[in-house]
Amino acid sequence: MHPVTSRAMKSQRIERIQDEPAPPPFPHDPGDSAGSHRAEVVSYSDDRRTRGLRALTEITGEAGVAVIDGLRGIAPDFADWIVDFSYGDVMARPGLDLRSRELATVAALTALGNAQPQLRVHVAGALRVGCRPQEIIEVILQMAVFAGFPAAINALTVARDVIEGRGAG
Amino acid sequence: MHPVTSRAMKSQRIERIQDEPAPPPFPHDPGDSAGSHRAEVVSYSDDRRTRGLRALTEITGEAGVAVIDGLRGIAPDFADWIVDFSYGDVMARPGLDLRSRELATVAALTALGNAQPQLRVHVAGALRVGCRPQEIIEVILQMAVFAGFPAAINALTVARDVIEGRGAG
Amino acid sequence: MHPVTSRAMKSQRIERIQDEPAPPPFPHDPGDSAGSHRAEVVSYSDDRRTRGLRALTEITGEAGVAVIDGLRGIAPDFADWIVDFSYGDVMARPGLDLRSRELATVAALTALGNAQPQLRVHVAGALRVGCRPQEIIEVILQMAVFAGFPAAINALTVARDVIEGRGAG
Amino acid sequence: MHPVTSRAMKSQRIERIQDEPAPPPFPHDPGDSAGSHRAEVVSYSDDRRTRGLRALTEITGEAGVAVIDGLRGIAPDFADWIVDFSYGDVMARPGLDLRSRELATVAALTALGNAQPQLRVHVAGALRVGCRPQEIIEVILQMAVFAGFPAAINALTVARDVIEGRGAG
Amino acid sequence: MHPVTSRAMKSQRIERIQDEPAPPPFPHDPGDSAGSHRAEVVSYSDDRRTRGLRALTEITGEAGVAVIDGLRGIAPDFADWIVDFSYGDVMARPGLDLRSRELATVAALTALGNAQPQLRVHVAGALRVGCRPQEIIEVILQMAVFAGFPAAINALTVARDVIEGRGAG
Amino acid sequence: MHPVTSRAMKSQRIERIQDEPAPPPFPHDPGDSAGSHRAEVVSYSDDRRTRGLRALTEITGEAGVAVIDGLRGIAPDFADWIVDFSYGDVMARPGLDLRSRELATVAALTALGNAQPQLRVHVAGALRVGCRPQEIIEVILQMAVFAGFPAAINALTVARDVIEGRGAG
Repeated sequence: MHPVTSRAMKSQRIERIQDEPAPPPFPHDPGDSAGSHRAEVVSYSDDRRTRGLRALTEITGEAGVAVIDGLRGIAPDFADWIVDFSYGDVMARPGLDLRSRELATVAALTALGNAQPQLRVHVAGALRVGCRPQEIIEVILQMAVFAGFPAAINALTVARDVIEGRGAG
Repeated sequence: MHPVTSRAMKSQRIERIQDEPAPPPFPHDPGDSAGSHRAEVVSYSDDRRTRGLRALTEITGEAGVAVIDGLRGIAPDFADWIVDFSYGDVMARPGLDLRSRELATVAALTALGNAQPQLRVHVAGALRVGCRPQEIIEVILQMAVFAGFPAAINALTVARDVIEGRGAG
Repeated sequence: MHPVTSRAMKSQRIERIQDEPAPPPFPHDPGDSAGSHRAEVVSYSDDRRTRGLRALTEITGEAGVAVIDGLRGIAPDFADWIVDFSYGDVMARPGLDLRSRELATVAALTALGNAQPQLRVHVAGALRVGCRPQEIIEVILQMAVFAGFPAAINALTVARDVIEGRGAG
Repeated sequence: MHPVTSRAMKSQRIERIQDEPAPPPFPHDPGDSAGSHRAEVVSYSDDRRTRGLRALTEITGEAGVAVIDGLRGIAPDFADWIVDFSYGDVMARPGLDLRSRELATVAALTALGNAQPQLRVHVAGALRVGCRPQEIIEVILQMAVFAGFPAAINALTVARDVIEGRGAG
Repeated sequence: MHPVTSRAMKSQRIERIQDEPAPPPFPHDPGDSAGSHRAEVVSYSDDRRTRGLRALTEITGEAGVAVIDGLRGIAPDFADWIVDFSYGDVMARPGLDLRSRELATVAALTALGNAQPQLRVHVAGALRVGCRPQEIIEVILQMAVFAGFPAAINALTVARDVIEGRGAG
Repeated sequence: MHPVTSRAMKSQRIERIQDEPAPPPFPHDPGDSAGSHRAEVVSYSDDRRTRGLRALTEITGEAGVAVIDGLRGIAPDFADWIVDFSYGDVMARPGLDLRSRELATVAALTALGNAQPQLRVHVAGALRVGCRPQEIIEVILQMAVFAGFPAAINALTVARDVIEGRGAG
């Protein structure tokens, strides 16, 4: 379903970008969702794509890339939106550090209580961008006040799995 | 509706408690909850009350005290829970700075979308504990990704009022 | 907007139906739904209407009738559904007393947090079917545990208005 | 758990009802609810049942019938409500074509984000009443704007399973 | 609050963009994302803005522009995201007609129940893109099944205001 | 993962506390919160703990204790809050009987629709404190009116498992 080749290509692409000296203005194939010459044309959106892939990788690592990969087969433009808009336009913005962004994300997903796959990704993301496990847990505990104990308990269960799984890694 | 006497009594009580001999200034680390001497300190409900009132005042200023005052008439224990539990047990915990706590609160209330009075209080609270307006706005904008644009737009409207109102103060 | 004539007609209709010869006074137990003779009774939509209007009036008094009246102009079938289904099929069922039904309704509307007009109607409804103010408040306070303090605070504000307004009546 | 006999009986009942002499094939327009001869038709609960079973089968096929079957053991009246009210009164109404109804249902269940079994049934239902897979996906993608990316991602995962599973059928 | 000058500038900008030489009027099908000539069109980020403003105006008329105007003062990038992403990337996509998009939006906002300002805009939007009042009402009534009667009642109240207000226009 | 020793220690602690000389058996009425001698009693956190463990065990039996046990490893203070605040301060309050409290909890968790583990615990809890299965089902069915059929269907599935599982016990 998610062919290894596609994932491998994806990883290669990320590496290429991160290894690159100076994020070139048209360096990559955006989403690869249309013809191969599309990249040259997308011109200024390049910046969104580059920023988005960088932020996505920085925050979610392989997990986020796998999600994008999984979505690309059924809704390629949607996969691009996540990269370009969610990460390129929003998460990559200056004005708030990534640690605060990820703690805010954990807070919101805990409170909503209906997005456990995303909570899993962002607990891991919070750890990846430098939050200490205790900080993540503090945010989740605090949600008992604002969204009730069930929301906090269920999020804590997810966080425990991610945090302990990481300890084993 | 909130008789001045009640509010005055309230203030007196805060003062009285704050004048008390030796409420240890965060003498323990609840994050380090296995501490053996912790029980002695936390076991006094006075301590929760003192910590709670201090955190409540530090975060919400007069607005939070007014909410508590307003609730005391119909549900006095509930008013105490907000002070003792929400602020004394939860918000006053070390392990996460108040700025991060308030940004997480703004994130959650924006995502839930059904708690505008509390959002108002906590946008002001975020400002009070030292968040810059732009940081609060960044958190709200980010919620467009996680909870949709309507949630973010409605929260931004609240935040604008609070931030601009404050500028006028 | 809700013309007096329409309301009067409405009242007339309630009376007319209630004057009808022999709508059996809860002659069956829908909770015991395998009853073979049940079909004969429930099969008349009149029965649903009669039961529904009776339950609606018993629980919501004039407030519910006014809501129905207000909706009838734009969506008459919807107004009928509230009477026939919500009150005739559901709320009028035996198997749970009206007090428990109204406390459950207050709990749910408090937890959802986005239905204040309905919460207002059902706090009044809970009082009307015999709940003590303190019981209603207990349910709302309890929601702080299951849905968070903002949900409970906002519901408590609504309940206070209804309960105090009633005391003045 | 869902004995074959029970399901067979169910099917029989559907057939029996559908074999009935002359249930007028949508003889009235409930959207035009002031119709004077409407009362005669709607007053028979048989009519609701017949319409409901027809709409249920048309939209959900065997999946919906299986859900009803599964519920009948614990709450038979509730099973009837789904047939009579949800499908007989609501979904079978003229005034909006079934394709639009199913796209609206997919939109709502995606946005709510806590009803994946029902989303699965209604993605299949949307396909069954003639929506193209791309239309269903478009509605889900659009929910990223109104309910956030996590809601859209999780619904897209469900929709992909249903759509690809169907291709294999 | 929304100075006329700002609104005028806004209008000018729309006009300027719309006066631009030759933004092809929906010349491509992004829903069919493998389209080989697509790249040339989507490549200009200007195109997102143009498409977005056109879709925004087509759907929301002055109301949407006023919202954007109101947000621009406090969060200009956010205002751009609404135009470029919500309307330019998402709502302007082919693959689903605007009538279906607006009915799906009304369904979702009704079900969420916490976004009445947006519901107001999109009930008007649904009318503007050609939905009949009865279709909008049908979608809202249907939400009683999927999100409960309070959600449907509150949305119906909003819709009635918009629809009747329009009749008076 | 939850070592037997930890659970054994836990049981010991419960026993130890319950063996304590004279924890006044609900010696005060928090519903009557103006009681002047109340402060002396409530001021011992032991009292909250004792009351909380008693209410927790009475309502949730081993299931609740297992949840607490599971949480203690990652967030010990949070585990204490559930005992002290959720059960000691809130659920143990007089002013509303436990049966009504559990039915209200089932109503809220059904309506929220995103807390199935907690719903499972509290359906069992409702049975344990004396609710009849039919009463629990009635509350869930009623939620079809207030939160929609998907919420009620999904809760009914959980309740059926718990109720039938209990019959087998």
